[in-house]
Amino acid sequence: MKLRLLTPGPTPVPEETLLELARPVFYHRSPEMKQILAETLEDLRYVFCTKNPVVTLTSSGTGGMESALVSTVPQGGKVICLIAGRWGERWRNICKAFGFEASSVEVPYGKAIDPEQLRQALARHPDAVAVCCTLCETATGVAGDVEAFGKIVAETKALLLVDAISGLGTMPCRCDDWRVDLCVTGSQKALMMPPGLAFVSVSDKAIKAMEKNTSPRVFYLDLRKALAKLQEQDTPWTPANTLIRALRTSLKRIRSEGLENVWARHERLAAAARAGMQALGLELFAERPAPGLTVAHVPAGLDGAALLKLLEKKYGLKLAGGQDTLKGKIIRLAHMGHVDQFDVLAALAGLELALLELGRPVKIGAAVSAAQQVFAAAVLPA
Amino acid sequence: MKLRLLTPGPTPVPEETLLELARPVFYHRSPEMKQILAETLEDLRYVFCTKNPVVTLTSSGTGGMESALVSTVPQGGKVICLIAGRWGERWRNICKAFGFEASSVEVPYGKAIDPEQLRQALARHPDAVAVCCTLCETATGVAGDVEAFGKIVAETKALLLVDAISGLGTMPCRCDDWRVDLCVTGSQKALMMPPGLAFVSVSDKAIKAMEKNTSPRVFYLDLRKALAKLQEQDTPWTPANTLIRALRTSLKRIRSEGLENVWARHERLAAAARAGMQALGLELFAERPAPGLTVAHVPAGLDGAALLKLLEKKYGLKLAGGQDTLKGKIIRLAHMGHVDQFDVLAALAGLELALLELGRPVKIGAAVSAAQQVFAAAVLPA
Repeated sequence: MKLRLLTPGPTPVPEETLLELARPVFYHRSPEMKQILAETLEDLRYVFCTKNPVVTLTSSGTGGMESALVSTVPQGGKVICLIAGRWGERWRNICKAFGFEASSVEVPYGKAIDPEQLRQALARHPDAVAVCCTLCETATGVAGDVEAFGKIVAETKALLLVDAISGLGTMPCRCDDWRVDLCVTGSQKALMMPPGLAFVSVSDKAIKAMEKNTSPRVFYLDLRKALAKLQEQDTPWTPANTLIRALRTSLKRIRSEGLENVWARHERLAAAARAGMQALGLELFAERPAPGLTVAHVPAGLDGAALLKLLEKKYGLKLAGGQDTLKGKIIRLAHMGHVDQFDVLAALAGLELALLELGRPVKIGAAVSAAQQVFAAAVLPA
Repeated sequence: MKLRLLTPGPTPVPEETLLELARPVFYHRSPEMKQILAETLEDLRYVFCTKNPVVTLTSSGTGGMESALVSTVPQGGKVICLIAGRWGERWRNICKAFGFEASSVEVPYGKAIDPEQLRQALARHPDAVAVCCTLCETATGVAGDVEAFGKIVAETKALLLVDAISGLGTMPCRCDDWRVDLCVTGSQKALMMPPGLAFVSVSDKAIKAMEKNTSPRVFYLDLRKALAKLQEQDTPWTPANTLIRALRTSLKRIRSEGLENVWARHERLAAAARAGMQALGLELFAERPAPGLTVAHVPAGLDGAALLKLLEKKYGLKLAGGQDTLKGKIIRLAHMGHVDQFDVLAALAGLELALLELGRPVKIGAAVSAAQQVFAAAVLPA
């Protein structure tokens, strides 16, 4: 059976990147490594839309989030967390673990934070030193309005920290234009790599905050150490150097397609997935849907786990379900990274057949046809 | 030109492990991943000589060291660091970064800590909560007497933390018998993997210390979170799952050779390397030489950097030089992990030719012949 990995991370890795991963290991303090770090830095800047340094960490995305917080926020500092799901909660949990004072702005799962809520929170907490938000809330499929958050936070002394782990590379995230101070992503989403690396862009405002921060709570994930070494095309600790070498290949693929084309592709895949699911009578879950994944309610009376299992075992389609309180209640179809229109068609076609087999009233062909309408619209000139 | 990676990490990765690294990425919350975590846990326990849990972290070895320290040592806690080189200093630097009170026992580079020094330090600091030491001081090639340290620390309330990053798998490190509480290693040394993973074994005594530790200074590297998830064959954060899948293959190779045979091979390679270098008139650097690497002084009047460059560029032999104050003063030939007797012969042969070319008086054949004597002794029954 042919397998299609359509989970919101890890995502499919291009064949040429997989082959890079199988190349012999090399010494990490070498001219070759410096060259790789220099090249990937430039390509990461391109994907982050920034002139700022972008640090590569050997960790998961959560390690990147922690590094952004603990490198900049002083002991007991006040942090506003914008929470629309599990990944917004991750920000708050890190704050709690380090004794920061987390003040939360929350909306129900499936909803998006209104920028006005942030404005009010900052008015209530003028002493906040950081605002943490999420570009794509992977748990619900909701896109955060980071551009609007950025305009508001830029007027204050606070830093804007963005978890862009499953968003960056699927949708616009113009770090410099939007005044993002610390933008975090991971390797295993739209950057088309296995898990193991995190990336953090760092603004001048963030660097100034770090220089003042003397809290004894950071070493391995210290962005100051990483930034100092980055200037010499080096890393403070032994990096996962074969992953970084392979990253270079995946980043070249993004360069070659063109970042705006990559965003447009993801938007097109999302529009097709939404059209297809709606044609099957599925109700979409996200108020402000992100382009990297499409989330739908499991219809009443249907066993969500059985649906996912059937898709995986019979059709090789690996989608994700809900997490925590959303377990069994939603299905999440990711179309991020190395995914094209025919992968989305395959997912919708499998969904039609699986729903049919599970006894749902399905008009066979409705989903794939609705998706094709979206793709057709992109074929002819406007 | 054929390349031979003979640095003390990264080390050569077996071909079958490299091919595993090129396999498609898979979902990390899956029965397949649980199976892989269960298998690698058992094989890690075998290599660590322990019945205790061994946590797998997505980080460098330094991340593993930090996780062991910050998970167990309370705010302001007193830590005795046994320092015989750069990697012992790493323990002290982590302590400083987290505001622990580090008390150092130091010996000059190239020397080994006398267990009696530790006994005296513990008498001076009966309130120490942890003792940090190094199994193989990669910077100098000195082996630490962890067995003796363990006997002394076991009589106290302190925990014994061992940086076994470049030692584990090259030499005995019997975590349970030696009463090691937290043993740390990395993937890119004798475990024959690329960098990106760290491993920490955790004793009951360490678990009790963690449970009492409420310091707000750990999240991503929190061993408590990792241990809780390990019980479900899971990880708290997205792991570098393709690295862990490939690790399984490298660990099977150790199982198949047999751990005691692996240790004996490393001891034999080290004995041969030492005999070869001495036959060339090189002075050995380490007082108590470790089996994973052999370190020699650069002879007076010789440019150490030129020697290493010649070995690399002309013969494909990648050895390492000294770090920090030892830069240019020593050469380090690593024979750890996927290295055999003919690799060591190649290194010695290259060394003979390079020294000849650099104008040193060399008796051609002396080093390889001396090494062969060592290998020959292993051929015939005792």
